[in-house]
Amino acid sequence: MTQADFGVVGMAVMGRNLALNVESRGYTVAIFNRSRSKTDDVMAKHSEKKLIPSFKIEDFVKSIATPRRIMLMVQAGAGTDAVINQLIPLLDKGDILIDGGNTFFKDTIARNARLADSGINFIGTGVSGGELGALQGPSLMPGGQKEAYELVRPIFEQIAAKAEQDGKPCVTFCGENGAGHYVKMVHNGIEYGDEELIDETYNIMRNVLGISVDEMADIFKEWNKGELDSYLIEITADILTRKDDLGSGKPIVDMILDRGNNKGTGRWSSGDALEVQVPQSVITEAVYARYISMMKEERVAASKVLNGPSEKVELPEDKKALIEKIRQALYFSKIMSYAQGFEQLRFAAKQYDWDFDYGKLAQIWRAGCIIRAGFLQNITDAYDKKADLTNLLMDDYFKDIANKYQDSVREVVALAVKAGVPVPALSAAVTYFDSYRAEVLPANLLQAQRDYFGAHTYQRVDKPFDQAFHYTWYDEA
Amino acid sequence: MTQADFGVVGMAVMGRNLALNVESRGYTVAIFNRSRSKTDDVMAKHSEKKLIPSFKIEDFVKSIATPRRIMLMVQAGAGTDAVINQLIPLLDKGDILIDGGNTFFKDTIARNARLADSGINFIGTGVSGGELGALQGPSLMPGGQKEAYELVRPIFEQIAAKAEQDGKPCVTFCGENGAGHYVKMVHNGIEYGDEELIDETYNIMRNVLGISVDEMADIFKEWNKGELDSYLIEITADILTRKDDLGSGKPIVDMILDRGNNKGTGRWSSGDALEVQVPQSVITEAVYARYISMMKEERVAASKVLNGPSEKVELPEDKKALIEKIRQALYFSKIMSYAQGFEQLRFAAKQYDWDFDYGKLAQIWRAGCIIRAGFLQNITDAYDKKADLTNLLMDDYFKDIANKYQDSVREVVALAVKAGVPVPALSAAVTYFDSYRAEVLPANLLQAQRDYFGAHTYQRVDKPFDQAFHYTWYDEA
Repeated sequence: MTQADFGVVGMAVMGRNLALNVESRGYTVAIFNRSRSKTDDVMAKHSEKKLIPSFKIEDFVKSIATPRRIMLMVQAGAGTDAVINQLIPLLDKGDILIDGGNTFFKDTIARNARLADSGINFIGTGVSGGELGALQGPSLMPGGQKEAYELVRPIFEQIAAKAEQDGKPCVTFCGENGAGHYVKMVHNGIEYGDEELIDETYNIMRNVLGISVDEMADIFKEWNKGELDSYLIEITADILTRKDDLGSGKPIVDMILDRGNNKGTGRWSSGDALEVQVPQSVITEAVYARYISMMKEERVAASKVLNGPSEKVELPEDKKALIEKIRQALYFSKIMSYAQGFEQLRFAAKQYDWDFDYGKLAQIWRAGCIIRAGFLQNITDAYDKKADLTNLLMDDYFKDIANKYQDSVREVVALAVKAGVPVPALSAAVTYFDSYRAEVLPANLLQAQRDYFGAHTYQRVDKPFDQAFHYTWYDEA
Repeated sequence: MTQADFGVVGMAVMGRNLALNVESRGYTVAIFNRSRSKTDDVMAKHSEKKLIPSFKIEDFVKSIATPRRIMLMVQAGAGTDAVINQLIPLLDKGDILIDGGNTFFKDTIARNARLADSGINFIGTGVSGGELGALQGPSLMPGGQKEAYELVRPIFEQIAAKAEQDGKPCVTFCGENGAGHYVKMVHNGIEYGDEELIDETYNIMRNVLGISVDEMADIFKEWNKGELDSYLIEITADILTRKDDLGSGKPIVDMILDRGNNKGTGRWSSGDALEVQVPQSVITEAVYARYISMMKEERVAASKVLNGPSEKVELPEDKKALIEKIRQALYFSKIMSYAQGFEQLRFAAKQYDWDFDYGKLAQIWRAGCIIRAGFLQNITDAYDKKADLTNLLMDDYFKDIANKYQDSVREVVALAVKAGVPVPALSAAVTYFDSYRAEVLPANLLQAQRDYFGAHTYQRVDKPFDQAFHYTWYDEA
């Protein structure tokens, strides 16, 4: 009996597509699903393929050659633990479980440690690109035991998306235990930031400049040819050309309700930035923007009693020049968001003892995933030049763009704020830039306040930083 | 033998001061500390007082009348658990443990449940006001079993700070299990926001307007007489009058290093806002401002290569009028921060099944704690008028201020952004205002993007909100 090269648990659309992707590269794939019907459905549609279905998990495990490579594509959380607990007694030492779910990285760290005790390897891997990506080529972010990953690597490199620039597969070993799911989390946070920044520029063009949806589609199409070249700009341009499919004749965006949902990963990424203590304001404002968008009823009520600016904002005469400034503001802010995201990775590396190859991380996002964009190559180049770069803004390419475009972002943010159009992420970007380039911040006053009310002590500008000082603000007798 | 009315574990400065505070109201207080020396020290200094020292925890427990009221003033986390585990076998059903430490509310929820199984009551209480507050009158935020709190209440009402306005004690029962520590956490987040907003206005006056430290001391003194009347404005004015105590002759603020430390509670509060899904951008930017201030070396390096605005900003001629606008921007932004904090409380109440009396919460912050301020009375008044107020901005007083001052905050934020002076919290405040009063946000485009790449579906403006729609963006065959 032929044994399978690879096993997939979970035949919902992501798991099925991933199994088909692996099979398409010449492998025999064992498949299993908790309820039989999904597996039957796959076999009915793909009877000619090298798939080995099992309906008992014991048979599934037996059908795979050792050391077994089994990928779990099941609901993150309790669902994953349930499958793992069923599998443990059936597996042999040296087998490799791969969690391709949308798992919180701390859960992956815990599972990796727990399974290592039984001699089972555990690879937590980010899988980006949605259903189509799973089938045709996702971006993969694996982490766990390096030696175990080496046995998975040939398959992952075959199924991953290939970058247009150089044909390289969009997969790299991210690091020990939860590193892969950590990288995926930051990727998702960055995705939130990208989307919010695009949406804010759309809102400015529409509500400050009064540009029509049709005209804006052309603007985004144009933007996609330059520095902003990316999947999200491309689909935004496309979206803006689409008409209502229920026949109102209006652009579809005008028929879609402005309540922005979230599935939690952007929130995880901001929560983690708070924990590793790195400022990640652009992404966080993007998360908050979704929350406030959900408060539709409150907003409608508030819109009736809270006023906008008492004077209409004065627009500069050259509309074309202003649109170019908006483009520059968007690119500038996107760079700030990535600078924050990569600082977050650097801080996390210290905290969790990972050794990220930052350039490689940008490289594997060049295809397959939602944030794929031309400018990721510039990030890879920056780290190729200097592997221990502290912040993207210290790289020549990004520094030059920031310096060149900062006047534009200032003008656009000032204009939007004066016009009463919300720009939480764009303004977070420019205030981050101004904070980061500030030799002196007003935290001296903060430290004085903290020392005043709580005797928290402070450092002095003229003394070694390891010395703590306290001022006698009042008689403490 | 006289038995004590109250027991305190932990004779570090907070515990000692709290015990002395209780004793000063006519109670006999049992005291205990893990190491003997601290207790000896208290007794040496206060031999005449009604304190009963014990050096074995068994003796300590025996020295207290039942039902025992024992307050833990020990290190949060493992320290608290260690003491609790020692106490459990010595306590009787109906005894009351009170945790006055700086405890994360989820730990309090877990301890409350665990102890309830043994019939022991557990009150987690926020204690604000630092060392002096503990001695003379803190603001207290207790939560746990209501019936148990009734037995603690007479003592808490005596030791708490009294509001200047009406002499009412700054303590109220916040709610079940972790509600008290939750309220304290939000209080601390709000404190972070208050401080950052003050520091940003200081920075604008100093670095955009070129106002001297002396002059600024007078400005804050003046501000403290009006709407901004508060402890933090008062001490800021005082701080700015102080000269270096090491003799440089300079203002002390100029000798203090601009690295803003944090002890974690602001971070908790923002992390929780992300979890309960409420936009809390002003406080979060305050937390991030501390983080970025800690990156002193990176900032110094960045300041040499990242440029400020290429043109000097034009200041309006009337400096006095601009200072008044900065004051209005500060008050406006403070209101936004509290509006967000109280929305967070409201969202948490739903999630954790608490029933906050919001007006009371503002009331007990009027004295004893760091954020004490005249305007808290306006919050109490707002909830007195309408207990189920959705957002502070919907109350007449706050709505009117916001509408009146919004032009000022727009002008000040635009000016600072154009001048290259960072205003993360002030700009978060105005963008929150503009988002909250937006009948339509660009989340319609976001939902289109999410449906395009992930088939996440969307709601329509012309259909019931429980219906989900998906657009055929591309051939999905």
